[in-house]
Amino acid sequence: MSDFDLVIRNARAVTASDIFLCDIGVRDGLIVQVGQSLGTGKCEIDAAGRYVTPGGVDGHCHLDQPHAEPIRMADDFDTGTLSAACGGTTTVIPFAAQAKGQSLRAAVDDYHKRAGGKARIDYAFHMIVSDPTPTVLHEELPALIQEGYTSFKIYMTYDDLKLDDGQILDVLSVAREYGAMCMVHAENADCIEWLTRKLEAAGRVAPRFHSHARPMLVEREATHRAIALSELVDVPILVVHVSGREAVEQIRWARGQGLNIYAETCPQYLFLTAEDLGIDDQYEGAKCVCSPPPRDKSNQQVIWNGLADGLFTVFSSDHAPYKYDDAAGKKPGGKEVAFRHIPNGIPGLETRMPLLWSEGVMAGRITPQRFVELTSTNAAKAYGLYPRKGTLSIGADADMVIWDERDLEIRNSMLHHAVDYTPYESMHLSAWPGVTLSRGEVIWDGSQASCPPGRGKFLTCDTPSLAPRKLMEI
Amino acid sequence: MSDFDLVIRNARAVTASDIFLCDIGVRDGLIVQVGQSLGTGKCEIDAAGRYVTPGGVDGHCHLDQPHAEPIRMADDFDTGTLSAACGGTTTVIPFAAQAKGQSLRAAVDDYHKRAGGKARIDYAFHMIVSDPTPTVLHEELPALIQEGYTSFKIYMTYDDLKLDDGQILDVLSVAREYGAMCMVHAENADCIEWLTRKLEAAGRVAPRFHSHARPMLVEREATHRAIALSELVDVPILVVHVSGREAVEQIRWARGQGLNIYAETCPQYLFLTAEDLGIDDQYEGAKCVCSPPPRDKSNQQVIWNGLADGLFTVFSSDHAPYKYDDAAGKKPGGKEVAFRHIPNGIPGLETRMPLLWSEGVMAGRITPQRFVELTSTNAAKAYGLYPRKGTLSIGADADMVIWDERDLEIRNSMLHHAVDYTPYESMHLSAWPGVTLSRGEVIWDGSQASCPPGRGKFLTCDTPSLAPRKLMEI
Amino acid sequence: MSDFDLVIRNARAVTASDIFLCDIGVRDGLIVQVGQSLGTGKCEIDAAGRYVTPGGVDGHCHLDQPHAEPIRMADDFDTGTLSAACGGTTTVIPFAAQAKGQSLRAAVDDYHKRAGGKARIDYAFHMIVSDPTPTVLHEELPALIQEGYTSFKIYMTYDDLKLDDGQILDVLSVAREYGAMCMVHAENADCIEWLTRKLEAAGRVAPRFHSHARPMLVEREATHRAIALSELVDVPILVVHVSGREAVEQIRWARGQGLNIYAETCPQYLFLTAEDLGIDDQYEGAKCVCSPPPRDKSNQQVIWNGLADGLFTVFSSDHAPYKYDDAAGKKPGGKEVAFRHIPNGIPGLETRMPLLWSEGVMAGRITPQRFVELTSTNAAKAYGLYPRKGTLSIGADADMVIWDERDLEIRNSMLHHAVDYTPYESMHLSAWPGVTLSRGEVIWDGSQASCPPGRGKFLTCDTPSLAPRKLMEI
Amino acid sequence: MSDFDLVIRNARAVTASDIFLCDIGVRDGLIVQVGQSLGTGKCEIDAAGRYVTPGGVDGHCHLDQPHAEPIRMADDFDTGTLSAACGGTTTVIPFAAQAKGQSLRAAVDDYHKRAGGKARIDYAFHMIVSDPTPTVLHEELPALIQEGYTSFKIYMTYDDLKLDDGQILDVLSVAREYGAMCMVHAENADCIEWLTRKLEAAGRVAPRFHSHARPMLVEREATHRAIALSELVDVPILVVHVSGREAVEQIRWARGQGLNIYAETCPQYLFLTAEDLGIDDQYEGAKCVCSPPPRDKSNQQVIWNGLADGLFTVFSSDHAPYKYDDAAGKKPGGKEVAFRHIPNGIPGLETRMPLLWSEGVMAGRITPQRFVELTSTNAAKAYGLYPRKGTLSIGADADMVIWDERDLEIRNSMLHHAVDYTPYESMHLSAWPGVTLSRGEVIWDGSQASCPPGRGKFLTCDTPSLAPRKLMEI
Repeated sequence: MSDFDLVIRNARAVTASDIFLCDIGVRDGLIVQVGQSLGTGKCEIDAAGRYVTPGGVDGHCHLDQPHAEPIRMADDFDTGTLSAACGGTTTVIPFAAQAKGQSLRAAVDDYHKRAGGKARIDYAFHMIVSDPTPTVLHEELPALIQEGYTSFKIYMTYDDLKLDDGQILDVLSVAREYGAMCMVHAENADCIEWLTRKLEAAGRVAPRFHSHARPMLVEREATHRAIALSELVDVPILVVHVSGREAVEQIRWARGQGLNIYAETCPQYLFLTAEDLGIDDQYEGAKCVCSPPPRDKSNQQVIWNGLADGLFTVFSSDHAPYKYDDAAGKKPGGKEVAFRHIPNGIPGLETRMPLLWSEGVMAGRITPQRFVELTSTNAAKAYGLYPRKGTLSIGADADMVIWDERDLEIRNSMLHHAVDYTPYESMHLSAWPGVTLSRGEVIWDGSQASCPPGRGKFLTCDTPSLAPRKLMEI
Repeated sequence: MSDFDLVIRNARAVTASDIFLCDIGVRDGLIVQVGQSLGTGKCEIDAAGRYVTPGGVDGHCHLDQPHAEPIRMADDFDTGTLSAACGGTTTVIPFAAQAKGQSLRAAVDDYHKRAGGKARIDYAFHMIVSDPTPTVLHEELPALIQEGYTSFKIYMTYDDLKLDDGQILDVLSVAREYGAMCMVHAENADCIEWLTRKLEAAGRVAPRFHSHARPMLVEREATHRAIALSELVDVPILVVHVSGREAVEQIRWARGQGLNIYAETCPQYLFLTAEDLGIDDQYEGAKCVCSPPPRDKSNQQVIWNGLADGLFTVFSSDHAPYKYDDAAGKKPGGKEVAFRHIPNGIPGLETRMPLLWSEGVMAGRITPQRFVELTSTNAAKAYGLYPRKGTLSIGADADMVIWDERDLEIRNSMLHHAVDYTPYESMHLSAWPGVTLSRGEVIWDGSQASCPPGRGKFLTCDTPSLAPRKLMEI
Repeated sequence: MSDFDLVIRNARAVTASDIFLCDIGVRDGLIVQVGQSLGTGKCEIDAAGRYVTPGGVDGHCHLDQPHAEPIRMADDFDTGTLSAACGGTTTVIPFAAQAKGQSLRAAVDDYHKRAGGKARIDYAFHMIVSDPTPTVLHEELPALIQEGYTSFKIYMTYDDLKLDDGQILDVLSVAREYGAMCMVHAENADCIEWLTRKLEAAGRVAPRFHSHARPMLVEREATHRAIALSELVDVPILVVHVSGREAVEQIRWARGQGLNIYAETCPQYLFLTAEDLGIDDQYEGAKCVCSPPPRDKSNQQVIWNGLADGLFTVFSSDHAPYKYDDAAGKKPGGKEVAFRHIPNGIPGLETRMPLLWSEGVMAGRITPQRFVELTSTNAAKAYGLYPRKGTLSIGADADMVIWDERDLEIRNSMLHHAVDYTPYESMHLSAWPGVTLSRGEVIWDGSQASCPPGRGKFLTCDTPSLAPRKLMEI
Repeated sequence: MSDFDLVIRNARAVTASDIFLCDIGVRDGLIVQVGQSLGTGKCEIDAAGRYVTPGGVDGHCHLDQPHAEPIRMADDFDTGTLSAACGGTTTVIPFAAQAKGQSLRAAVDDYHKRAGGKARIDYAFHMIVSDPTPTVLHEELPALIQEGYTSFKIYMTYDDLKLDDGQILDVLSVAREYGAMCMVHAENADCIEWLTRKLEAAGRVAPRFHSHARPMLVEREATHRAIALSELVDVPILVVHVSGREAVEQIRWARGQGLNIYAETCPQYLFLTAEDLGIDDQYEGAKCVCSPPPRDKSNQQVIWNGLADGLFTVFSSDHAPYKYDDAAGKKPGGKEVAFRHIPNGIPGLETRMPLLWSEGVMAGRITPQRFVELTSTNAAKAYGLYPRKGTLSIGADADMVIWDERDLEIRNSMLHHAVDYTPYESMHLSAWPGVTLSRGEVIWDGSQASCPPGRGKFLTCDTPSLAPRKLMEI
């Protein structure tokens, strides 16, 4: 009789702090033993000294999120989670987005319908709070937090989503009282609208002008403001998709004041620049239209520094899957449109982990442990999934990646999302997940996926655990 | 037949990133398995859900370091390592100090004589480089680094130790070439001497004037200079015993520039203030004379912030054991002397870990994981002892602390060093090590030590592993 | 026959850069000669070596500004300008305030009616833009700027005045295009409202809670935002009534980036603290309710530093005259009310210049030249009145103050405003204007005023001239 | 009979704060009246509305300063002051340099011998203190300060000049006690030496490597250190020849702390870059070898910002006249040498004022008043020559420049120094002094000089008057 359902032999296991050679014993989908010369498993995999990391937790991705016509996300929970699995991600936390006027509960219920039966890997929900009515603030949000939806995102831009400062304070108060984590999209809406109109009036509507409408100061201002609001309420926030120097400086300053400001960045700020939005009137730059836009080379270095030195807490994809050559996507209505009308976002669920392992760890910019912290452990902690997810420790779900070192060139044809392009086409990498395991099951073997729709489980979330939560008296 | 030499049952194991309930199996002094329901051990300890952390690695302590007459350190390797063990520290890295004119090799050889047969726990050596002659730079230091003495400390103050900027650059070049870690005592010697003379001329020689002779700007200036020298050579440094806001701001700024500047702080900057140096002509303040001196309450908060947010890399004791009421100690020659002549330093090996566990973790200021990172893992990484020391991972030495939560009042009489006072006398704590294990042996059971002199082993050190070492072309 | 209408003999003349002994010759209300041993004057005044400065230009004061019932300003152009004259101010620039829904032109016309026949000294108008409709932006504002109303103020707080960020950008665009100066009241409205409600809900409504509702971060955030908006449009702004460290740091940062951000401070931030708002439920603290509120002692020092080192451009009174014991004033409706309902502002037109001369110049904190720059020259330059006002140079209006050094104690009874208190009651000063001259006429002789209502002339303003206006291409 | 010796008619007079149209009346070499329609002068000059500024005060230039063989300065007081006059400078303050081992008094006496009978314009002396013996500190320096040598310069680099930190503190103490101004050359000597040796070891000795040996951090570190030493002693310093962003940031930070740190910059940091030191092995780059070296374009902008916003106090030439093609100059011993042996410095006395008037004022970067403040008034104030020099005010020496607007191209052949090149050869300017007056005498009429050797007078200096000197108790 076997001791374990599965044993990974000769793993170079990596946690957010440690690296060690061991066997990893799995039973009932959980890691139950780690050590030398473990007993037998019904199934055994020889890692042969390869690195084994916790499966990725992508704390920022958009799947099957409702949109106004004609826009439609290309990925639903089926294709999205397949793509995630093949790229080493074993947990996704997409967004149940409240529409203005909608009940938050209804948004959550609707989102469960979209996920159920489709998800191939485990998933939790962030909520997007776009309409903090008294009912939302005092009834729905507290109840949902207590039911396990412990994080939500708010927007400082986008007409259909943005909150004003007073609403943000109200929402942060709830986060404080009930111990939830608030993610903030920090860009100044009025500035963007004002610049967009100026650009439109001047006929500057090609994709590349998207970045002209969102210069770094637009992000810097909103970041400073978000920090101030967080400071006022005395509650942590997590600033998502930080793109460059100016926002980074605000966050670094806030930390120096002793404020609990967490920050996320994404692959697009390491590997793309504003030039990828095209030159002249090239429309193909629409593929890289996302917000905030990618900056320049010197800002990429600033982001690398922030990843290495601990400024950033999490590294997410902000996967927002719109087809390029499609009436429901980057060419809404099937034609080239002014940048204002191009849906914002780029695909990245599958490439997130390999990009950072290859260009971060293997290129000597960050340690393997920091990789784990950024791509998995800290997201699990920030969003209340730890220690079930985000770690190789005893009792955790046996979600793992075994890394193959091999040269490859990214091609959209090898990816599993439903988007018709990747912004990283032709980029050379030196690693890719050789095996992805979810709860002890091989769901990707390096060439083939084996995770049917519906096997993914919904995860309720606990209180965030990045730091002790100490509240001052207000 | 037992599976293990020792099993710790029901441990709430803490690493620098994780917490998990498990049993820990030890064989031949190493952690060989971690998991649920491990097999039997020759010896078993029920942790009963208590926290189990890696044993402390004190990366900054002074033991039996030679002095000019009449000063003599109260602790040698015997009493010092006993004291360490009883406070949860299982590895010490004191200093083999080169005297000017002395060969560095001779200093190391001499220090082995002092340690051998006496040390009760494992130990490695930092070197102190005070005389970087061409022979030292080009022969001794490279050879010693390659033999396992991979870290050394330099001083920017103290007449018998200080290096000038050119010497520092030379020494940092060697650190860069051979992959060593350089620790820096950053205070401006000339400023201190100048202020000391002014104070002496004004008859201001009581212990409390020690802090007047070393205001924060003296530390800030030297910290900025050390950072600049490190930047010039493009090699990391670790700034030791950072005391407050002004030096912290320099280090934070450096990090923001992408520089690899590590920093250490010590209990005295969390729990003492300049007022502890006495009022008026009180001589008892001599007990708290150390350099840099403790600052004020607001600076304690700055240090706590730096511990919580990742600014500090390590938390050490800077144990420098001089008796108070003793001709060889704080009353050199047996009488009250001007502050210039009071030996600098305070005892703290035994209290370091309990102070931070009690006031940091249990008081809700830092997570248990951050405690482990600060007191153990990062010191092991910084000084090349990782993964043998500093972690609970598979293959590591079974050095552990099981923490008892209990109220106690610190009394010097309960401590095991040879110093006749503790600066923390009467302070209330809510935890103390209930068990300390070194290589699987119980060396402290909460009331009794069992680690005879000589059981401690000398450790050779590898290359520091805090971050990938990426060198730019100069 | 006399050479001059007036000669001031033996003046220690002070400009924003120079001090020199001279006679000053005046003809037709203008300074026409400055030199040694000038010819005779119809009238001669022997300054006897006393300092003679340009008359004050108070660039920020409120007179007879319309209010909702029952509030009414105590000072109109009659009493306000009398008070100004007796304190050494010879030009005031109060605000023609647009009500929401009102035409800006109508506001200006109305304000002329309030000033005409009443003003005793010369005056210009700032406008307050509270409703930037397309008509206001594209017709009224451009026309009014070109007619000589070249500065206006916008508010980021107060429900009846505040603009949103998009409106601010629109207004700044007009300032950029037509060369106007935009003053900004920088406090975050939503934060104040949110805190006020919290305080009210907790029954904390005494005057002192006014400062709790407006902590420094509220000002810091809005200051950062105003700077960002100014940077976006590439047009200078002038941040009014800066109260302390946090806003100062933002402005200093902006200057370091090469941005043209000007700043004003006021006497209340040098001489009052939050404690002056009272303890417990004392209502008399209402006398010092102004926005932003005074901070603490350490912030006073920050403001002094900014005055000395050039951070601040102008020093104004922000005179906002409400009686204390009056149904139209600080006790609206005649009774003690929650702080939200206390009209914001304190009187200070008459004390502004003596306070800064006495505590700034004579106490050795700033030079006499810097006094002139702050109280007169820079306001004239910032608001397009230079070189007619703000200087002793040839061709300028002969507006001057001869300073008497004498000990005195401020008493409201000696002041000439119509307010029933001064926040500086009982404060000791060591100087007061011995003579104030307006266009060569003695309007205050140290004890008696002689400036009948109606003698003040309206001044049209030119383009601001603090710095060359260099516009980048947007 | 005439009223004046000289009248300048229709002058657009500029002071550090004001601009006004007037006639300027001069008697006995002094400005005695300024006004409209002045009486007659024995001599009259019609400025015809042209700008008239105070004559330049060059607070940083080197003339006939003794050197070790074979180096010799090309300009002595004869050619140097002629060159100054033709470029609009009417006062120079070169350096009486103490050699190590030499008495400071002897250095001053020797320098008088070099100046006497040769100087064509007025001059004062800074001292260079290179050997602060007790006699120098306690006898010579106090006596010399009291005799009118109220400023001195110290070096943090150059083997024959540099002081260590303790010596700097001693010297600053004397400055504090006797009210002198201390100028600081801030570069870290050890870093430069260390880098120079590395470069030499690699055979990198062409002129361009001079800038590699002095990167910005070398200046930043020394600037920070100088600030710290100034802060410790609580006495102002003036950091000379600030070259770029890193040092600027330190100074801006210091100002924000309330410290009195003054700063100077020079034309070379506005108009040259490191590229002017040549490419590959080009030796002609030696012409631009000065310390600190010019930086890059982005740093030029930082310097312009600092000039505009008030960061810089003075704008000097740092004229250091060595011929290029000469055995006593940049080719010492007559041959191309390693950069270490190239005498540091570039000529600039004559071009300083025209460069800043043309590219600063006329190009719209700074106001005419700021030009006056930077080139004349503040230097006079900083070095105790105000109000005799540096202003157009009553009683001041009638030192003036009347500016001609005209296009010209700088050619060394049109300059009057004895150096065989100018670094600004071929640069286009749009203005040049049309007339220079010294004490009411025309010494340059736009094409011809008329100031014989020996007409220049030695000026004793008073206490600096940039700011009130407030000393804290130490």
